[in-house]
Amino acid sequence: TLAAPAIAQSNPKITWRCTSSFPKSLDTIYGGAEVFAKHISEATDGNFQIQVFAGGEIVPGLQAADAAAAGTVELCHTVAYYYWGKDPTWALASDVPFSLNARGRNAWQYHGGGIDLMNEFFHKQGLHALPAGNTGVQMGGWFRKEIKTVDDLKGLKMRVGGFAGKILEKLGVVPQQIAGGDIYPALEKGTIDAAEWVGPYDDEKLGFQKVAPYYYYPGWWEGGPTVHLMFNKAKYDELPENYKSLVRTAAQATDANMLQKYDYLNPTAIKQLVASGAKLRPFSQEILSACFDATNQVYDEIMANNAEFKKVWESIKAFRNEHFLYAQIAEYNYDTFMMVQQRNNKL
Amino acid sequence: TLAAPAIAQSNPKITWRCTSSFPKSLDTIYGGAEVFAKHISEATDGNFQIQVFAGGEIVPGLQAADAAAAGTVELCHTVAYYYWGKDPTWALASDVPFSLNARGRNAWQYHGGGIDLMNEFFHKQGLHALPAGNTGVQMGGWFRKEIKTVDDLKGLKMRVGGFAGKILEKLGVVPQQIAGGDIYPALEKGTIDAAEWVGPYDDEKLGFQKVAPYYYYPGWWEGGPTVHLMFNKAKYDELPENYKSLVRTAAQATDANMLQKYDYLNPTAIKQLVASGAKLRPFSQEILSACFDATNQVYDEIMANNAEFKKVWESIKAFRNEHFLYAQIAEYNYDTFMMVQQRNNKL
Repeated sequence: TLAAPAIAQSNPKITWRCTSSFPKSLDTIYGGAEVFAKHISEATDGNFQIQVFAGGEIVPGLQAADAAAAGTVELCHTVAYYYWGKDPTWALASDVPFSLNARGRNAWQYHGGGIDLMNEFFHKQGLHALPAGNTGVQMGGWFRKEIKTVDDLKGLKMRVGGFAGKILEKLGVVPQQIAGGDIYPALEKGTIDAAEWVGPYDDEKLGFQKVAPYYYYPGWWEGGPTVHLMFNKAKYDELPENYKSLVRTAAQATDANMLQKYDYLNPTAIKQLVASGAKLRPFSQEILSACFDATNQVYDEIMANNAEFKKVWESIKAFRNEHFLYAQIAEYNYDTFMMVQQRNNKL
Repeated sequence: TLAAPAIAQSNPKITWRCTSSFPKSLDTIYGGAEVFAKHISEATDGNFQIQVFAGGEIVPGLQAADAAAAGTVELCHTVAYYYWGKDPTWALASDVPFSLNARGRNAWQYHGGGIDLMNEFFHKQGLHALPAGNTGVQMGGWFRKEIKTVDDLKGLKMRVGGFAGKILEKLGVVPQQIAGGDIYPALEKGTIDAAEWVGPYDDEKLGFQKVAPYYYYPGWWEGGPTVHLMFNKAKYDELPENYKSLVRTAAQATDANMLQKYDYLNPTAIKQLVASGAKLRPFSQEILSACFDATNQVYDEIMANNAEFKKVWESIKAFRNEHFLYAQIAEYNYDTFMMVQQRNNKL
């Protein structure tokens, strides 16, 4: 029976816990961790099990990365920009304003050295991070009144996340931190004037169109945010090589799958939202330009004092220029032609 | 030792052969099969080996699917539209003119029932097919002279593949079938007037800009073509469940990875091509519209006699309308703003 132990070693029994930052109601984004766990379990005949817990079941959603770093759990499924308050470099792993879109971000991550560059940073936090989801560009959120000029932003109380909030603050917005379930009543009562959430599929469940009908786009602070699996680094390092490889393969499949699922679900949702009262509005060029300028100012401020942020952002920025040069040739012209046909009811 | 056989069974030793349709020189597209094989081998500690052979080593590139169906090899890595002459339904698995872009195609395949729908067809051919690569929208090819109007297409001898060739024929083009290595001398001598290949990264290696400098876009016949792994169905069915799952996971990761790699490599290539003489030209709206109309005519002709084509095309067509409706909101506006900044040297 010499062969038995060697073979047994190839698929050892392991059970890990994954704490998600998301509630089960966000089924696409929360579901990413379950998709990953299923890939791993099935390929190992159930020997490598990952149990997924919703945000709050083990630790609060916004402490998921801390729990993985501390070894409370072996891994978490989270968005890196939640932790930008520790160091804005975290946010670069996920998304920052006016950065790449989903395809550009993935090109940079998987082939432009982005995953390794971010892990140089994450390893110092006791984490090893792999992309495992993307929402595509998000919407700019729900507004009770139309916003036409930069002046309309002044004094606007908006539920908006950390990095984008910092930029909007420069333009007079008063950022608010409110949990998902409290947004609707706050918009209804007028305690806040606006709120951003995710995109059509997730937003529809919360019914914002009834209380803040103006639905702005694009969410320039999230052109293609990555959702990560973050592993306790010591636990990840201990995995046998075949499990490490399977984890990388399954994470890349999971990453692609979330975007594919959002891309399939969002079109139906946007039509339903419009049918039930949502009024689509593009941010004006004036507003986008002012936000873009304010963003660049924030990047310069951070880079002056943060060498790690500077190193990663300069890598993203260099590829951003290449990506949006290339994308404006065949991709943009193909899409434009097809969209014109769509508008003319020819598809 | 009761446990040993059960454990041994979970990663049985298997060696399969995969015949690629591609030469090794197309390293990104050919490399997809090697990426897949690496995922499988590593996750099984080398127990499940897939040996990849370049086009021509076992069977000619355009007979790869036949070899897999016949069991000459267990699987192939190929593009389904190569086989459209057998039945145009094959082409729908990969790409057809004026169809979805890469993100739309993936949404339809993985979440809109596309993979299953195509496998209803492929199972009758003795194959089980999984997406395992995408090039993104291709370029429209290299032209010795500028093409400005539909009249300029009349009598034009162009190296162009099957389905697109059939459509271009309706507009007066004379399609030519020429192997990759023979295109350059044919363009140089003027035996042909134009040739399409893939996109900047692959095209650059062949140096077409020196003999046919006008580089047109977009390649409206390939908005986001899928490259497939096609398995001999009986062999695939015999795989243990854990291997089947691993194959699906690895194929989805491989699928995403090829597009990510092209998206990373193409920007540098397009800049180098332009620097060495390529002159970028968009197809005129007149030409695109005429090609779009001719395409719709061909679809109608095929659907009149081919119920399987009709079933699949109507599924793609329905989602095409949804996809290009949704994409024109946040995605398009985000990209447009960023491209304008790129043109203004602000990125």
